[in-house]
Amino acid sequence: MPESHRQIVTLRVALGIEYDGTAYHGWQRQKNATGIQSIVEGAISAVANEAIETICAGRTDAGVHATAQVVHFDCHAVRPTRNWLLGVNANLPEDINVTWAAAVDENFHARYSATVRTYRYRILNRHVRSALTRQRAWWVNEALDELAMQQAAEHLLGEHDFSAFRAAACRASTPFRELFSLQVKRSGDCVTITVTGNAFLQHMVRNITGVLVTVGKGDMMPCWARSVLESRDRTKAGIAAPSHGLTLIGVKYPGCFNIPQGTEPRSQATGEEA
Amino acid sequence: MPESHRQIVTLRVALGIEYDGTAYHGWQRQKNATGIQSIVEGAISAVANEAIETICAGRTDAGVHATAQVVHFDCHAVRPTRNWLLGVNANLPEDINVTWAAAVDENFHARYSATVRTYRYRILNRHVRSALTRQRAWWVNEALDELAMQQAAEHLLGEHDFSAFRAAACRASTPFRELFSLQVKRSGDCVTITVTGNAFLQHMVRNITGVLVTVGKGDMMPCWARSVLESRDRTKAGIAAPSHGLTLIGVKYPGCFNIPQGTEPRSQATGEEA
Repeated sequence: MPESHRQIVTLRVALGIEYDGTAYHGWQRQKNATGIQSIVEGAISAVANEAIETICAGRTDAGVHATAQVVHFDCHAVRPTRNWLLGVNANLPEDINVTWAAAVDENFHARYSATVRTYRYRILNRHVRSALTRQRAWWVNEALDELAMQQAAEHLLGEHDFSAFRAAACRASTPFRELFSLQVKRSGDCVTITVTGNAFLQHMVRNITGVLVTVGKGDMMPCWARSVLESRDRTKAGIAAPSHGLTLIGVKYPGCFNIPQGTEPRSQATGEEA
Repeated sequence: MPESHRQIVTLRVALGIEYDGTAYHGWQRQKNATGIQSIVEGAISAVANEAIETICAGRTDAGVHATAQVVHFDCHAVRPTRNWLLGVNANLPEDINVTWAAAVDENFHARYSATVRTYRYRILNRHVRSALTRQRAWWVNEALDELAMQQAAEHLLGEHDFSAFRAAACRASTPFRELFSLQVKRSGDCVTITVTGNAFLQHMVRNITGVLVTVGKGDMMPCWARSVLESRDRTKAGIAAPSHGLTLIGVKYPGCFNIPQGTEPRSQATGEEA
């Protein structure tokens, strides 16, 4: 391919991104603080040999983790998929990594094409704190009734105005979101909330978790979750759960885009493809 | 109790300890490096108001974690169990914590009374590295056959001279140890090795893991594990698995000592006792 031709071709590439959010001030660039976005863009730019800007599927708050963030970017560089995967990882710190890379259609958009997002919130429910899970789970000392929490969760399913669960600073154009599933499961001392929806308002999962934990402690009845929802008043939900228990674990797109789902399958990552 | 009497009573206390070993140079005090032991002893000493020395169940290497380390110490301070738990935790950094406290018989010894120790080794078996498990699991890129690993493991069960699996620096008086169980299980990308024995030589679990992974990659047949064992030659086992995948998850004592097993039950930790 002649150099003159290469300059005018623009390619769209998508990457799966995993990160430990502990050391960062969230996904987005902040004033006087390092966002994961700027680290990722720096690593991609080094491989692309040009300045790259990314769009992500879900902007996570400070301290929130991801196993399955998705970004896309446009570039002029023609690289085999395997080179994006290995090259960007070689330029990332150990608390951020690419899990897959794919050349995508120009109509693919990491944020607007996404139809389903899944977050997991982990709670460590025991009497003493835990050194090993301190950056991955919210330690709740008081006994939680996970069945009551699940009953409360049922009130939030479906499409609603989630104004009561959004952050004061949330800039979304509409407070309507649809929850497809909201499951509360206990395994020993660990209570895990898994929530799937079309999209989420800022702090929405953390505010939902705060309400479920208030019910789980027995401070409110499960039906209180419906009262909070119907109030559309963000002062009613009480405390937001802390960010470090939250992880973005899945983003789905229409099948036509051929975006890998969840963890990179070994066969795909071995890089035989383009 | 008069002050003069209090001075001559010596009490033995046992604590369960959890730690994230990432930031430390192992359990023991080292030249020019911080051991977890010295941090724990400092915190206990602050509560006891006297200089305390501890004995632990299993001295872990640099980078190794524990959910269930056990220590004992002698002191003159009379404290309710709950005060040891809360007081020592208040004096520990967030990457170390006490999980239970118990007043124990003067014949209890954290190291010599222990009859069973259990370690878990975690391997992340996928094509790309992982930000979120980087300090908790060994990333192995090549596909592992966990059934072959289990077959290899069977050769190591029982009482043997484990000289081939001990560190050069190991100072144990005898190389004989007994393995009660050695299980290899896969859950998705995660391969977990759980090993239970009466006691372990230095680096023994990491060297066993190295042998099992060599078999899992298909580089050696499962029966090679027996050849390594029978050689009693520590150059035969190849590489030791890295320390950060290893966690001490259980120590058992004869029932007469009433030592809590595994994770602290909620009822016990609420501290109504003593």
